[in-house]
Amino acid sequence: MVRVSFQGERGAYSEEAVINFFGNEVDFLPLPYLSDVFRSVESSSSDYAVVPIENSLEGSVSETYDLLLNSSVKIVGESILRVRHCFMIHPEAELSGIKEVWSHPQALSQCRKFIEKMKLKPVPFYDTAGSAKAISEKGILTAGAIASCRAASFYNLKVVEKGIEDSENNFTRFIVIGTKEVKKGQNNKTSLIFGTPHSPGSLYRALKVFADSGINLTKIESRPTKAKPWEYYFFVDFVGNVDDQKVKDALEELKKVTTFIKLLGSYPAELV
Amino acid sequence: MVRVSFQGERGAYSEEAVINFFGNEVDFLPLPYLSDVFRSVESSSSDYAVVPIENSLEGSVSETYDLLLNSSVKIVGESILRVRHCFMIHPEAELSGIKEVWSHPQALSQCRKFIEKMKLKPVPFYDTAGSAKAISEKGILTAGAIASCRAASFYNLKVVEKGIEDSENNFTRFIVIGTKEVKKGQNNKTSLIFGTPHSPGSLYRALKVFADSGINLTKIESRPTKAKPWEYYFFVDFVGNVDDQKVKDALEELKKVTTFIKLLGSYPAELV
Repeated sequence: MVRVSFQGERGAYSEEAVINFFGNEVDFLPLPYLSDVFRSVESSSSDYAVVPIENSLEGSVSETYDLLLNSSVKIVGESILRVRHCFMIHPEAELSGIKEVWSHPQALSQCRKFIEKMKLKPVPFYDTAGSAKAISEKGILTAGAIASCRAASFYNLKVVEKGIEDSENNFTRFIVIGTKEVKKGQNNKTSLIFGTPHSPGSLYRALKVFADSGINLTKIESRPTKAKPWEYYFFVDFVGNVDDQKVKDALEELKKVTTFIKLLGSYPAELV
Repeated sequence: MVRVSFQGERGAYSEEAVINFFGNEVDFLPLPYLSDVFRSVESSSSDYAVVPIENSLEGSVSETYDLLLNSSVKIVGESILRVRHCFMIHPEAELSGIKEVWSHPQALSQCRKFIEKMKLKPVPFYDTAGSAKAISEKGILTAGAIASCRAASFYNLKVVEKGIEDSENNFTRFIVIGTKEVKKGQNNKTSLIFGTPHSPGSLYRALKVFADSGINLTKIESRPTKAKPWEYYFFVDFVGNVDDQKVKDALEELKKVTTFIKLLGSYPAELV
């Protein structure tokens, strides 16, 4: 059975993303920190990991980008999850007795309308699934949790309402990381990091390479180099596979206008 | 006296940035959330506000970018702060009795070497200055706080060590927001937001306008539109003033290749 690690408690949204990609028949390895998740793949303690990289409302997950820069792992796939928040309470609790709602601050802010309607006091928690776990284990009867419905069934909680998020445009894109590159398939996407010289127009010259080659960028993200203030690395995703002649030629051109390039992998895209 | 709001408790790093820019003779207005800070400027409850936009190690402050998109405020200046973390304890505490260190998770992770050397248990707190305040108000003798030295003097704590951050490259760039645009000066910088059509090469065509006009971009940041998944707004900073003919011409060209443009302001740059 393939072993797949993810960040968070059992029942986390990352676990749903694991199932989306690999199905139910996997050995789940929940780990407390994203850095642990990367290390577990690097050291072969897990075969793969599924980590969040971007949410359609909150933006990029900076920590994942920074870990990709310094890690030897490859991106082998992606998985897009529609985030459906559920409100759950202890099976012995009465809804009329619930005064608080526990969850991660982002989940609380994404369910503001529901929380106001129910007249609950929001209480920030380190983790969505962790808040469900706490209510279950401590037998809390005066607070509910916002987490995935999977967390409710995992911790034997009663789901009061499903899909309580304010916006329907709440998606998280996860990447699947592993140690071996995947074979070329249909609808491929490639992710890479490049550095630019600290001179005017350097980002433009790098993007010109893609435009001149007719390669479609689907995402660009800047991250500080940390070595020098106000200098950045750029992370790009584009349509194509590193084995395509067009992409090979573009990467040769890109080398001429960048200070370094790191290929993160070519993999089947879930949307292009 | 000019009234300046900022996010956090008294003694926050944002308060240091206020003093950097305005000097000591201001009426400080600390507010709990960044959204409150923007609202206080919009409603003229404060004349200006100083808000963090980017840290050289952690990257951009997404919430500030999102608030700029939806607010009517103008950027009127910037202030760059070298972040110097200080370790402080209650004046009646003995260092040998200190077992824990309280602070914001980012400050804790930026002082990892010091915390390991002192064999302290890190305890995450909502705010750096808030952790100093709590130790002072609750008379805690077994935990210290990591915050600005200004917080130590504000809450009457004893500074044990200054400059305990792992990296010397720890700078935060703050922007000063107000309601009136500033007059053109030397070394100007301009910030604006643009949207691009959802078609291949659209970001490249926008950046081409700046490159062709010889305008130097100092920063680019993408943020999700929230209205439609995987579509982005781009925030750029560039050298120049909206009153420069070169910039006026470039903005006319930019209009042709973008779906919308919002000018955030031209202001004196602290570094270009």
